[in-house]
Amino acid sequence: MRTINIGLLGFGTVGRGVYRVLTNNRETIASRMGSPLEIKRILVREVGKDRGIDVPPELFTTDPRAVLDDEDIGIVVEVMGGIEPARQYVLAALAKGKSVVTANKDLLAIHGRELFAKAVEGGADLYFEASVAGGIPIIKVLKEAFTGNRIEQVTGIINGTTNYILSQMSDYGADFDTVLKEAQEKGFAEADPTNDVEGYDAARKIAILASIAFNSRVTLDDVYVEGIAKIKPEDIRYAREFGYVIKLLGIARETAAGIEVRVHPALVPCGHPLAAVSDVFNAVFVRGDAVGDTMFYGRGAGEMPTASAVVGDIVMAARNIANNLHGLTGCTCFEAKPVRPMTAVETRYYLRLRVLDKAGVLAGIAGAFGNNNVSLAAVIQKTTGAVAELVMVTHRVRESDLRAAVAELERLPAVETVANIIRVED
Amino acid sequence: MRTINIGLLGFGTVGRGVYRVLTNNRETIASRMGSPLEIKRILVREVGKDRGIDVPPELFTTDPRAVLDDEDIGIVVEVMGGIEPARQYVLAALAKGKSVVTANKDLLAIHGRELFAKAVEGGADLYFEASVAGGIPIIKVLKEAFTGNRIEQVTGIINGTTNYILSQMSDYGADFDTVLKEAQEKGFAEADPTNDVEGYDAARKIAILASIAFNSRVTLDDVYVEGIAKIKPEDIRYAREFGYVIKLLGIARETAAGIEVRVHPALVPCGHPLAAVSDVFNAVFVRGDAVGDTMFYGRGAGEMPTASAVVGDIVMAARNIANNLHGLTGCTCFEAKPVRPMTAVETRYYLRLRVLDKAGVLAGIAGAFGNNNVSLAAVIQKTTGAVAELVMVTHRVRESDLRAAVAELERLPAVETVANIIRVED
Repeated sequence: MRTINIGLLGFGTVGRGVYRVLTNNRETIASRMGSPLEIKRILVREVGKDRGIDVPPELFTTDPRAVLDDEDIGIVVEVMGGIEPARQYVLAALAKGKSVVTANKDLLAIHGRELFAKAVEGGADLYFEASVAGGIPIIKVLKEAFTGNRIEQVTGIINGTTNYILSQMSDYGADFDTVLKEAQEKGFAEADPTNDVEGYDAARKIAILASIAFNSRVTLDDVYVEGIAKIKPEDIRYAREFGYVIKLLGIARETAAGIEVRVHPALVPCGHPLAAVSDVFNAVFVRGDAVGDTMFYGRGAGEMPTASAVVGDIVMAARNIANNLHGLTGCTCFEAKPVRPMTAVETRYYLRLRVLDKAGVLAGIAGAFGNNNVSLAAVIQKTTGAVAELVMVTHRVRESDLRAAVAELERLPAVETVANIIRVED
Repeated sequence: MRTINIGLLGFGTVGRGVYRVLTNNRETIASRMGSPLEIKRILVREVGKDRGIDVPPELFTTDPRAVLDDEDIGIVVEVMGGIEPARQYVLAALAKGKSVVTANKDLLAIHGRELFAKAVEGGADLYFEASVAGGIPIIKVLKEAFTGNRIEQVTGIINGTTNYILSQMSDYGADFDTVLKEAQEKGFAEADPTNDVEGYDAARKIAILASIAFNSRVTLDDVYVEGIAKIKPEDIRYAREFGYVIKLLGIARETAAGIEVRVHPALVPCGHPLAAVSDVFNAVFVRGDAVGDTMFYGRGAGEMPTASAVVGDIVMAARNIANNLHGLTGCTCFEAKPVRPMTAVETRYYLRLRVLDKAGVLAGIAGAFGNNNVSLAAVIQKTTGAVAELVMVTHRVRESDLRAAVAELERLPAVETVANIIRVED
């Protein structure tokens, strides 16, 4: 049983996790896969730095060639993040026939096509389980377990930061800014939280999942994105009165008219499996034509969960190397399906309006909805002084019709403001 | 791309589902895996029978040799169920180097070792995803995705019939016998429900999962089994007062002293991901040392979900054949870990007692617990007339100590009966 040597590019949180997993569970992993795995070199910016982990110092190098040109290294693990030089290094490794395992969703969402082509050219594998939903093996499930299914829908809570914020707002009635600040103090949110809070992180992940589920390349630009900064404690309270919780969802659906792919906050029914997914946990709900409804739950980030996914991929790559094999599960975007514009999407909507509390107001509002094919499923009215808060949930309606109705509402003198609009996903 | 031919052994519910999936999604599956799959022969008892599905009649045969001796058939799918002749046929196929996909948990739980040995001997693959938890790809997850983890615990709701019965009892306050009868009328429970209701079906499945998770063969005889017939509506009500729901769990844990493996009803905290798994749905909760807590949810039975798992396996087997490869994921029981006796297990317990409502009773009961190292976490007392119902939840205690305490309780004159004992799993 020949040893398979690994080179790590980067030694931040995930890199250290990979080192720990491969070291702690060394014997079991070797028994499970039939040959030992060895970390041979680790590319870092600075060799002498104290990293709080016991690693033989001769493993470290600042020279990328020491990893990429080493003939004995069969698998390169890219955990440095960012686009460059990660992209160059990954391309160089694949060109030399080294298999690559990466946790880099940005790199993949932007340069996926180029990387997969290089893998085929070099005769190597490119694995990326850790790039979406951390420890949850959702890419393996979609690529390998559900091959018999036409996937109808993938709906995920795939950003831990926003799920933590919404869970805290829901549990304690706190407002967004307060919870965000607290999350930053606890290390659950970054100093610049834009990427998470505005939905861009989730958008990259749902683009990757949609591409795999529907066998058609979906890029970040295809994804409609709305963040959670607009969610108020009163929205969470009203949602609960209607029997819903509010979650940031990544949604990918295949319809007869094309693919829908979007990230936005949504009301999720309390009885739905996604409703119970709290705090930093992630979950991906998948509906296939044969398997029906399924859900995969776990930690979407963090040193050890992400390392679990990276090591799972390393073992797959190593098994292929041991069998002189590659390309068993390569790029699967063999179709080119259209992505539908957001205005064509049909769903239900929650609306919160502030209106003057006088006779005839409701009739005017009902008229604006009726004129635009929007029908209402439920209404709550709360009056305080001269202004009433009117909260409504619609039946299924086309987004363009809903937008037209809202434009008409905003022109009514009795409507002070359309305070919020949130989609409802059943 | 050469076609890979498949022979089906059996054409009941699952067999028809496999036929439907391979027919309906033929093009997609071929594109995903790179070569077309073709069902060439189907072994049945009677050729002419109307099966309510459109299949070319020349595919049917009553002669097992027509499948097992056909050189063009690369994959044999065993969906006939039962032990014999399924065992003989599977052995014959493997001996000839044909890969086998089976949904037969009974066959696997009893003859797994023999079948895996034959697969190695014949140079073939043996896949069995559909044998546990229907459409949920839990075997793939444990064998391939979580290879980097030391698995600490696998806890599953892995029997749909009992989960349906407990969900109905919980939602409508009905008693076990009434709900069972209704489940039988709806086809969710068999005419002889023993196998499901007494926990034997779940026991076979947890034995398979434990074997894979801990890399050590666990057989049905190793599993401690208790069914759900003893659960009363009042237990469900009291559990709810304490913040729990009652589920039939299959539990496999690895401890320093060995493997624990058991099936029994248990109180699960309302906030636990398994608590929200209702009706016929299954879910498997897995804790790994790297990945942390994960859960996999879906339909555990039925024509199409089970077929989804079988077809996922067929595609894996076909990819291996197309690459002249086998044995990538064979038997993984390379260790021999001891299984702990049930008396050594430590957990928490719910007890419901009927006691005489007079002075000093509680002191006597507390004494019986104290004498046996059992301490109480919570107590509810409800009095009706001269008899009180006393409901308690203990702290963690060794099962042997709990049993000794119960024996002592039963000797107290003031204790009319220990009406129920249910484990509590946090």
